[in-house]
Amino acid sequence: MSIENLSSNKSFGGWHKQYSHQSESLGCSMRFAIYLPPQVANGQKVPVLYWLSGLTCTDENFMQKAGAHRVAAELGIAIVAPDTSPRGEDVANDDGYDLGQGAGFYVNATESPWNRHYRMYDYVLNELPALVESVFPVSDQRSVAGHSMGGHGALVLALRNPAQFRSVSAFSPISNPVNCPWGEKAFSAYLGDDKSAWEAYDASLLMRAAQEQVPALVDQGEADNFLEEQLKPEALEAAAVASSYPLELRRHEGYDHSYYFIASFIEEHLRFHAGYLTNDA
Amino acid sequence: MSIENLSSNKSFGGWHKQYSHQSESLGCSMRFAIYLPPQVANGQKVPVLYWLSGLTCTDENFMQKAGAHRVAAELGIAIVAPDTSPRGEDVANDDGYDLGQGAGFYVNATESPWNRHYRMYDYVLNELPALVESVFPVSDQRSVAGHSMGGHGALVLALRNPAQFRSVSAFSPISNPVNCPWGEKAFSAYLGDDKSAWEAYDASLLMRAAQEQVPALVDQGEADNFLEEQLKPEALEAAAVASSYPLELRRHEGYDHSYYFIASFIEEHLRFHAGYLTNDA
Repeated sequence: MSIENLSSNKSFGGWHKQYSHQSESLGCSMRFAIYLPPQVANGQKVPVLYWLSGLTCTDENFMQKAGAHRVAAELGIAIVAPDTSPRGEDVANDDGYDLGQGAGFYVNATESPWNRHYRMYDYVLNELPALVESVFPVSDQRSVAGHSMGGHGALVLALRNPAQFRSVSAFSPISNPVNCPWGEKAFSAYLGDDKSAWEAYDASLLMRAAQEQVPALVDQGEADNFLEEQLKPEALEAAAVASSYPLELRRHEGYDHSYYFIASFIEEHLRFHAGYLTNDA
Repeated sequence: MSIENLSSNKSFGGWHKQYSHQSESLGCSMRFAIYLPPQVANGQKVPVLYWLSGLTCTDENFMQKAGAHRVAAELGIAIVAPDTSPRGEDVANDDGYDLGQGAGFYVNATESPWNRHYRMYDYVLNELPALVESVFPVSDQRSVAGHSMGGHGALVLALRNPAQFRSVSAFSPISNPVNCPWGEKAFSAYLGDDKSAWEAYDASLLMRAAQEQVPALVDQGEADNFLEEQLKPEALEAAAVASSYPLELRRHEGYDHSYYFIASFIEEHLRFHAGYLTNDA
């Protein structure tokens, strides 16, 4: 599990670093970023928030635009941001921004040609945390968060693996992908036409059937251009009511789908996660 | 003075907006960004911090990466970020990243072909504030700040126009451009070979000769790759000593030239400016 350091920037007393490594799950070289808060310089093992980005993003968008380092430094939380899909010339792709490279949707693809590389679910759930915990001074306390496609990914990961994540949060998640154009396009390609295979990757269906619970916070902007057609937070809300799931879903007047929305509320998300991550640190 | 709104994003209860307008100083269409804090919704006129970006930047880098909106919203300060040069197909350019479009150096060019459009000094000092103050709910209280080439621009503007700016700050400014490769290349092209014409755009020379004073804060990372060859903060520091100028210059171990450095300390810059901007608001 060798990894290569690509960049290092001191930030709020800690360090933002980018790495590349050869991923077994994905069969290609992958890049990720990590923010290590200043507490690790004292030999402290810190918990990790995994951040999953949205369509077209890389490991860079959140680290550069969310303004999260300040609060992570205060709270002593590391943040890991993977890329949003496998990458490379021999990795299948599509002309659309919403399928293929930059649009992995955090699933394990079963359909050709996608099933050769597109196993982002395994990568983010297993391979990346194992790598991170073997290389960096972090504990095995994990939470997960994301935006849009990454909000979908975060919710699905936590709902299916409640023992592995202490809390989950999302901005503007694709909450019911089996019922929206983005999800229908991606799931048809990656998972095939049998819609029963899609259900394992739909946060609203998973939350409705959930037995175990992970505290969940979701923020949604009311001026988000994708709200009605693609995001469907009402499906998630109804699922939470049906299963008495501990979901706090907040709607914010005037906010859109951009990183300015994320930056405006990321502090509250980090403090939410810190309440679960640091209890037995 | 008609301007066109290009985008609007709610951010920390205020608004980030981009505009384009036809600039008389520059003879081309120019884009700028403004952050309007939530206080303007109450009919309050707020002071303005002008932010000047560095080489290759546009109006977007600072707004997206500096994490400044949070504190500007708290303090009730608007931020205006212009582009870094005239732009367009009929605007002179150069293959280098450090000359031509994206590299206006905040001077009024006198040499052909640059003198047709490159008048960023006039644009930022006069045209843009007049436009901003005629269109937006802002007062005529102004401060100025910037990064690298923009730190040079901010210092020069304040040093030459102490009545127009209440405070000035810079990250990693090009402090003595007449004595560094970036400055020598740009000033030769824009201002010609007579180096006496360069002196009006050199912060260290201006500070050494300053009669009136504007409170000044400068932050410099000690791991900045450009520190020794291009930035030369020691020249500014010596000038401040010689003229008893109110300069606070801070060196920060481990920080580089990136926006992660700016983000780490922008809150202190905003609070520094607020101390001068809000006294008689």
